[in-house]
Amino acid sequence: MGGLFNIRITSSNFLDKIPRMSTIKKSIILLLLNIFAFSFLSFGQYEIKRIEPAFWWTGMEHTEVQVMLYGNEIGELKPEINYPGVTLTKALATANKNYLFIYLDISRSAKPGMVNITLQKDDKNIQKIKYQLKARKPQSASRAGFNSSDVIYLLYPDRFANGNEANDNIRGYEDKLNRADDYGRHGGDLQGIIDHLDYIEEMGFTALWLNPVMESAMPRASYHGYAITDFYRVDPRLGNNELYVKLSEEADKRGIKLIQDMIMNHCGANHWWMQDPPSSDWVHYPEQKTNTNHRRVTLHDPYASEADKDVFEQGWFVNAMPDMNQDNKLLADYLIYNSVWWIEQANLGGIRHDTHPYSDAEFLNRWTCHIMEEYPNFNIVGEEWSLSPIVLAKWQRGSNLPVDFSSCLPSLMDFPIQVSLVEALTEKEGWNTGFIKVYEKLASDYLYPDPMNLVIFPDNHDMDRFYRQVNEDLDLFKMGIAYMLTMRGIPQIQYGTEVLMSNTKPHDHGQIREDFPGGWADDKTNAFTGKNLAEPKTEAQHFIKTLLNWRKNNSTIHHGKLMQYAPTHDGTYVYFRYDSDHTIMVVFNKNKEAAKINTSHFYERTKGFTSGRDIITGKEYKIENLNAPARSVLILELK
Amino acid sequence: MGGLFNIRITSSNFLDKIPRMSTIKKSIILLLLNIFAFSFLSFGQYEIKRIEPAFWWTGMEHTEVQVMLYGNEIGELKPEINYPGVTLTKALATANKNYLFIYLDISRSAKPGMVNITLQKDDKNIQKIKYQLKARKPQSASRAGFNSSDVIYLLYPDRFANGNEANDNIRGYEDKLNRADDYGRHGGDLQGIIDHLDYIEEMGFTALWLNPVMESAMPRASYHGYAITDFYRVDPRLGNNELYVKLSEEADKRGIKLIQDMIMNHCGANHWWMQDPPSSDWVHYPEQKTNTNHRRVTLHDPYASEADKDVFEQGWFVNAMPDMNQDNKLLADYLIYNSVWWIEQANLGGIRHDTHPYSDAEFLNRWTCHIMEEYPNFNIVGEEWSLSPIVLAKWQRGSNLPVDFSSCLPSLMDFPIQVSLVEALTEKEGWNTGFIKVYEKLASDYLYPDPMNLVIFPDNHDMDRFYRQVNEDLDLFKMGIAYMLTMRGIPQIQYGTEVLMSNTKPHDHGQIREDFPGGWADDKTNAFTGKNLAEPKTEAQHFIKTLLNWRKNNSTIHHGKLMQYAPTHDGTYVYFRYDSDHTIMVVFNKNKEAAKINTSHFYERTKGFTSGRDIITGKEYKIENLNAPARSVLILELK
Repeated sequence: MGGLFNIRITSSNFLDKIPRMSTIKKSIILLLLNIFAFSFLSFGQYEIKRIEPAFWWTGMEHTEVQVMLYGNEIGELKPEINYPGVTLTKALATANKNYLFIYLDISRSAKPGMVNITLQKDDKNIQKIKYQLKARKPQSASRAGFNSSDVIYLLYPDRFANGNEANDNIRGYEDKLNRADDYGRHGGDLQGIIDHLDYIEEMGFTALWLNPVMESAMPRASYHGYAITDFYRVDPRLGNNELYVKLSEEADKRGIKLIQDMIMNHCGANHWWMQDPPSSDWVHYPEQKTNTNHRRVTLHDPYASEADKDVFEQGWFVNAMPDMNQDNKLLADYLIYNSVWWIEQANLGGIRHDTHPYSDAEFLNRWTCHIMEEYPNFNIVGEEWSLSPIVLAKWQRGSNLPVDFSSCLPSLMDFPIQVSLVEALTEKEGWNTGFIKVYEKLASDYLYPDPMNLVIFPDNHDMDRFYRQVNEDLDLFKMGIAYMLTMRGIPQIQYGTEVLMSNTKPHDHGQIREDFPGGWADDKTNAFTGKNLAEPKTEAQHFIKTLLNWRKNNSTIHHGKLMQYAPTHDGTYVYFRYDSDHTIMVVFNKNKEAAKINTSHFYERTKGFTSGRDIITGKEYKIENLNAPARSVLILELK
Repeated sequence: MGGLFNIRITSSNFLDKIPRMSTIKKSIILLLLNIFAFSFLSFGQYEIKRIEPAFWWTGMEHTEVQVMLYGNEIGELKPEINYPGVTLTKALATANKNYLFIYLDISRSAKPGMVNITLQKDDKNIQKIKYQLKARKPQSASRAGFNSSDVIYLLYPDRFANGNEANDNIRGYEDKLNRADDYGRHGGDLQGIIDHLDYIEEMGFTALWLNPVMESAMPRASYHGYAITDFYRVDPRLGNNELYVKLSEEADKRGIKLIQDMIMNHCGANHWWMQDPPSSDWVHYPEQKTNTNHRRVTLHDPYASEADKDVFEQGWFVNAMPDMNQDNKLLADYLIYNSVWWIEQANLGGIRHDTHPYSDAEFLNRWTCHIMEEYPNFNIVGEEWSLSPIVLAKWQRGSNLPVDFSSCLPSLMDFPIQVSLVEALTEKEGWNTGFIKVYEKLASDYLYPDPMNLVIFPDNHDMDRFYRQVNEDLDLFKMGIAYMLTMRGIPQIQYGTEVLMSNTKPHDHGQIREDFPGGWADDKTNAFTGKNLAEPKTEAQHFIKTLLNWRKNNSTIHHGKLMQYAPTHDGTYVYFRYDSDHTIMVVFNKNKEAAKINTSHFYERTKGFTSGRDIITGKEYKIENLNAPARSVLILELK
């Protein structure tokens, strides 16, 4: 686990570096080692295999931390500590004696240093652990999470750029490199991302959401990363923990916040603890593997049965992903401190939380509130893939909708707007079709306590590429991108969108997550450099780059107000972003002809202005009798 | 206006009995009369043509009442009154001197009797009015409005039964009887309804919503009644005010509450005051007749422009219906006291409010709160024809959704459930189609403060007949009716639904509102008696009658809890109504084959029970391994 982890090396630690060695083989080796150790060392029986988190910090808002110890029969031992300002508040063994969960209270007066933890049996010292308390980085607590001044670049680490061919295959990991297979590993890695941070910065992105980077030692389709097998270890095929921290540092130098994709709901079936769980209630339905019913509405349905609620929350997302039971407070705490550890350690600028509502709601409350108390300006965006704000809004921090849980989640992925925008662009205009869809959906914002903090996106890694969703129509594509980059909220653009990456097979995840051109040494096309990149890809890339860099310093888009006008079924739609200093008028025209805009109707926002400059073309437009070009979007800075 | 109106007769009153005499002709007659009166009576110049309301009551919760006086130049007069416990608080003239609005405060100590109102000019008595204060009926204030123990029968007075052929045509009313025209008058009337109250009672209905009965002196399509031309007068082709009160009394004897259809938003273009409005701001856009944009979401859209909000609220619903301006407090008060007058006078059991959101929201707040303060157990159901609870829920009394108005409206027409039920029944089952639609929509109830008080309906007078909506499939029809009569809320069934009335032309209002068979002397088929009524109409009628009469005394359906189970895409759907005494299990099976129901999943509700009796067939079903018959609904009383 390298230098990031300052734990006491025990006799078996090196085995963890070969994590996919079969358990039987490991056991034999350990048995041999133990025989050796027993004859050599008095405490061999109680060897410690894992200490998680490996270290902690002084000066945290929550002074308590849980440390999980894993090792042979260590649950029998009694821990003691002796360190100024640090108290051992609890030590909890589980049904499985190979675990011991200790809770330390690190008071405000505690100084960084090595805490001696002694594990005793019958008043004899059996084991000694030196547990490090580090000093926090200055301003760690007040760090800003991603917000509406940012635009997030979402990318698949395995599919973006291969910066280190040496880690394409790792001994002990069954799922090998196979670029010919859409669902195989393609070799992209953290080094590849680091190598192209300049590109990401120059495009104008200011935040980076990576699909999960933790170890996923699954036999197939491990590239997707959502079946985590070690919550404290970056997958070695992507890099390692040090490189991940380096990536964060390099991103930070470029003004790019790193957002970690976290999953509280489930782990991978090959997670190391699944072979030796602390207790029988560590995961739900350990034998039956009952699948969830996906009925997220059970969380607000006043008429829901306990049976349906239980299957929803406790059922497995898929068979390869055991559903973790956060009713078990030891597990809940483990996950909470794991999240805080990564924020602190990798200097995160945000969390994207997968399958948000599928976890226990009370746990989600604890998890989100704990993090937001620790980092008040941080951000967490939850994935609630429903198409109605009725389902989403109850989750946002400050909601007063009547549900029996209370959440500190600051942000949600705005799926309702995503689907409405695509309908708006692709449907024929009618009384209830076309632009009216996105207009009416946006009006529903009144249900959210803070719509400005929602993450908006044309697509993500789980759905057809946006260019495909708008029928590979470049005009509609540009309108959609312009919408996302001028609308309220925090835009997120997926890697490759800027060069019109598309998919032919509907909903085919493997194809949707294809390799970014130029990320591999033998790629003929290079979207980083523009080499062999043809129209209209270059046009799209230029369009997005122009918009992003304009948006980057535009406080009216970041924080300004929004006013939208009801579409009149003529294929146009107009809204404004404005503040006391600036007014931006956004005009969509889906028609095949130029459209006269009845600008007098917009007098509330246009008074005092006579013309506007389109930020894409630089062209000036008079506001009176505005003629919107065919199949276009104008983003006019009014003057 | 007959015995209901105890107003002082003035020289012109008889002209109002011929309301469609042209205004020119009337003016000539009035001129002649005035010349005569002037030479004969000292106060002829200030004759009074209307006093509205014509009388009032003592003992009201709101002690104030507005009385509108209309007559030649009476705005110049100064009113005085002398009556124990009654004070004249305000007398307001308008730009048009033919109006005088006086406000009386009728204190708790005031006794019923005739209040002398003297109108003076230059300290001389010009006019004397005897204004009657009546005693309220006992328990008037505490009357119960329609509620979830009721089922409402909706009928079109012109289309249900012709009980009096003498009023089929009335002199002065341009729109004449023409049964051959779907949009003409067909001759149905209040007497026809009175004649068939026994039928309505025997079917099992306990409330009666009539489409509007006030005068609608419009030249065409006046039968629909939504363009009211006199808010104080029943249309003479339907009957008169006395007969309306008699209908209410006769209904009451049969345990049937009368619900009046009211319209605050607009009047008919031929309303008498449109020729001589009190002020230029009495209606919106009097010249332009700008149409509303129908964008009801502007009422909650945080980003709505004032321009769109104004057009929505102030625009005319259609050109024949001027949009009343309730920002004018005189008009607002006029409408409020008109509503209270009808409740008190016709002993109403509820109000159905047309086009609810189209009126000024602040006025709606005053109107609903005033009525509900006056009658705390009353009910008003608003029509908000949107398909999402996002749009509806904010209106319900007690809502804490963040909008800038606050409503006392107790009930809404549940359009979201209506459309979802039809989708549930007619769509093929899939991940997001079929029963899941109505299941998920119902879960949205959490947004409403009081979902039990919503009015649910398979169809209404403005949409395709329900039998048409389910593709004239009797099995689906029965499922839909069973849903409505066992679901939470207050069911409403339209006249003729019980005999499968349908329509061939989509959305054709005239055809949807066809005549009830048996309501006319020469009808060959009689659905009241069953004469010539063929299958499957008799089967449907029997089905509904059985269900209604079962529901009538079923407190578990009226007030019990609801639990629904997530559909599993197999074409079945199960919910329960239950209380401490009874459990009713409702099982839908859309499949062409019988379906095995996994009853163990429903253990929370079925424990302690072994079998259930279907209330339609009387057949017993064992709960274990329940086999739901093909294309059916079971309503099982569990034992």
